[in-house]
Amino acid sequence: MSVGVWPQDVGIIAMEVYFPSQYVDQSELETFDGASAGKYTVGLGQARMGFCTDREDINSLCLTVVQRLVERNGLSYEEIGRLEVGTETIIDKSKSVKTVLMQLFDKSGNTNVEGVDTTNACYGGTAALFNAINWIESSSWDGRLAIVVAADIAVYATGSARPTGGAGAIAMLIGPNAALVIERGIRGTHMQHAYDFYKPDMLSEYPTVDGKLSIECYLNALDKCYSIFRKKADDKLCPVKNGHRFTLNSADAFLFHSPYCKLVQKSLARLLLNDFLSNPDKYPDLAAFKDVQLTNTYFDRDVEVAFMAASKAIFESKTLPYLWLANQVGNMYTPSLYGGLASFVARHTLTEIKEKRAVLFSYGSGLASSMFAFRASDRVDSVLSRLVDSCADLAQRLDSRQKVSPADFASAMKLREETHHLAPYIPSGSVDCLFPGTWYLVQVDDKHRRKYECVPLASN
Amino acid sequence: MSVGVWPQDVGIIAMEVYFPSQYVDQSELETFDGASAGKYTVGLGQARMGFCTDREDINSLCLTVVQRLVERNGLSYEEIGRLEVGTETIIDKSKSVKTVLMQLFDKSGNTNVEGVDTTNACYGGTAALFNAINWIESSSWDGRLAIVVAADIAVYATGSARPTGGAGAIAMLIGPNAALVIERGIRGTHMQHAYDFYKPDMLSEYPTVDGKLSIECYLNALDKCYSIFRKKADDKLCPVKNGHRFTLNSADAFLFHSPYCKLVQKSLARLLLNDFLSNPDKYPDLAAFKDVQLTNTYFDRDVEVAFMAASKAIFESKTLPYLWLANQVGNMYTPSLYGGLASFVARHTLTEIKEKRAVLFSYGSGLASSMFAFRASDRVDSVLSRLVDSCADLAQRLDSRQKVSPADFASAMKLREETHHLAPYIPSGSVDCLFPGTWYLVQVDDKHRRKYECVPLASN
Repeated sequence: MSVGVWPQDVGIIAMEVYFPSQYVDQSELETFDGASAGKYTVGLGQARMGFCTDREDINSLCLTVVQRLVERNGLSYEEIGRLEVGTETIIDKSKSVKTVLMQLFDKSGNTNVEGVDTTNACYGGTAALFNAINWIESSSWDGRLAIVVAADIAVYATGSARPTGGAGAIAMLIGPNAALVIERGIRGTHMQHAYDFYKPDMLSEYPTVDGKLSIECYLNALDKCYSIFRKKADDKLCPVKNGHRFTLNSADAFLFHSPYCKLVQKSLARLLLNDFLSNPDKYPDLAAFKDVQLTNTYFDRDVEVAFMAASKAIFESKTLPYLWLANQVGNMYTPSLYGGLASFVARHTLTEIKEKRAVLFSYGSGLASSMFAFRASDRVDSVLSRLVDSCADLAQRLDSRQKVSPADFASAMKLREETHHLAPYIPSGSVDCLFPGTWYLVQVDDKHRRKYECVPLASN
Repeated sequence: MSVGVWPQDVGIIAMEVYFPSQYVDQSELETFDGASAGKYTVGLGQARMGFCTDREDINSLCLTVVQRLVERNGLSYEEIGRLEVGTETIIDKSKSVKTVLMQLFDKSGNTNVEGVDTTNACYGGTAALFNAINWIESSSWDGRLAIVVAADIAVYATGSARPTGGAGAIAMLIGPNAALVIERGIRGTHMQHAYDFYKPDMLSEYPTVDGKLSIECYLNALDKCYSIFRKKADDKLCPVKNGHRFTLNSADAFLFHSPYCKLVQKSLARLLLNDFLSNPDKYPDLAAFKDVQLTNTYFDRDVEVAFMAASKAIFESKTLPYLWLANQVGNMYTPSLYGGLASFVARHTLTEIKEKRAVLFSYGSGLASSMFAFRASDRVDSVLSRLVDSCADLAQRLDSRQKVSPADFASAMKLREETHHLAPYIPSGSVDCLFPGTWYLVQVDDKHRRKYECVPLASN
């Protein structure tokens, strides 16, 4: 073995969240769709859904969020040695979104920037994040920072899945001396061939979904990842007084990829089921379930009800507060989990977040999944404050969005459906409604080449 | 800084090359296309072009090459901790090829396998390779091996670009104590936004190409990567007696992504131009060119002719022998460069390859490019022999392919064009002509779900 150098405290230094300036209200959408009251808001757990007109595509979302991250953190583009994108919003089968983002680096002259695009449904951002962290610990690292972008436009055909859409982009600045430090060597991964959700219709923005299979795949992957994660975490994260046993008590937050918030609540309950089955004597109130099997309880109503009830307090303290963006923007696909992480940051004060541990479960249909953890730094002033500042404007920006009627939302979806693949094409959506600093599509020429401009930042 | 552990000699342990069992002869294709004699064979430098019928797709190519790598190396699937695919042959916008490959792991029960798919034109395999090497040097590594797969089906519409197609898959076993060891910290990368070659028509297998722009982008990227690579290599790779100056004399092989072999010859000449401009006094015969600029000579015929002539001997010894697979199979896209590396291995004896250094230039339009290097191990018996054995059957397999007439090739292309996106679909191509051990498509059902079977290995 040769001695290498892993820098200290590798992880997330700062985050930048972008969501569309327009949203549709889920209760209004229930009425518009003729759905029963509460179907989307209570049944799915969704309040508002962000969406993009034909002015935004995957390239523009990523241009916006990367520029914001760099500018708001006072970075120069020379400082970035790696930039990669995780997305399942594919508008070119060959050219990566990453190469489009290199336009932002033009003035700096820095073209020595590793990383391209990474794809597997909602997991691509996690793969990119792991790759960036590994890069910094490897001999390939040249001392510069990395940026990881997770971005998607999640749209569904009219019908029951439409309210589970969303759109957004999250950029993370990765480096040593980070505010959210990856817990080294503690990761559970489960990958499997499944056709639960996929996008084989290359001309459509909409996925092909087997809803029931997807829930089963998600919950099974969660069981598998938690099992591996716990084995690695038992010794490394758990003090002797806990008997070296990782449980829901061993972390301060449990964050999940969120197709819709209700599934996340069921998932937290599922982790309690795992804890219980590993050590039933510790949970006497649940003794009636001691003979159940993980693999045949994905749709067991009794198990679900009992463990949802038993995990309610933990859910409300360790998960629900961090479903904030998922509830307010919808499923952003790859950024969904990192919306949970940004919510975790935004909903704590500096002193509250210090040394807190968050466990994350990433899931992408098809399927790829991992469970891993970050620990917040104890360096409040120099390190944590930068991260907390980077998420401090989320509430204000969520509130400043513009509500659009379900009818206008449906028109915007129809326009996307009919035009997203056209060349040449001039978008017709309003530019005025976009947030300052938002990149938008100006035209697609007859060779499908796309041109973008940026809404100026408000002058002082 | 904290002390981590980088394992010794991380790199490529073994390789597996898969190319189609059928090819079209490029001189016959010249006649068939009504092109002037020598246009494809001399002008492009191509002899034969492999192609797939409707029985093979990106999933089947990768299933074939991964299973072969595992079986021929006597591995078990439990030993693999990471598997990732680099490709630009996208048949699903969300589900990764990697997840399809997890079917091979079913019997082993090993689902804890990191990595998904990585995309940017012909660069995806290189990104996957770097990611796998970084993983092994990082705290994420769990001691198991990685497999990197580069695979593509490169097809063009009828016309002048059609003879620059090809198809194939290359899998590389990555780990410590490797036969081809990555030269640590010596890498030049250049990434840039360009529309030189891309695939915006989601319903077509064919790219949109700006041929002249693509050559300029390729050669410019080569200049940029070589400049950074040399700076890092000067001190680390070059002994004092060479004055710490990396030149074409400092490595035993120069391997390139090969859209067609003629461009590679021009590229080697281009490196000599770079060497010359850095130190003109060392090349008195070329003194007439001492005032030329890199950036305005991409199509300078005088410069090209002079430096092609001056670099002819180096080309013939350090590059041409390794264009073997590129010449015989065509442009495989992501595997192209690694076909060069496999040729480098296959065309040396064990004692010849010992401690030899190969410099590689990877290019993917759009664009992403890197230059990096491997050094062959000095451990002939225990390590190098495994690598050399893994490439020992290439000549026999190339020779055992079946030649197909240009007319039948054109029919196969037309069938792909008309059917590659259909669901449901039952392929009609012959299974008998496939090599033993080849996976092939059996059906696409009405939900676009794909089923595969494998040609049995010949019984003893």
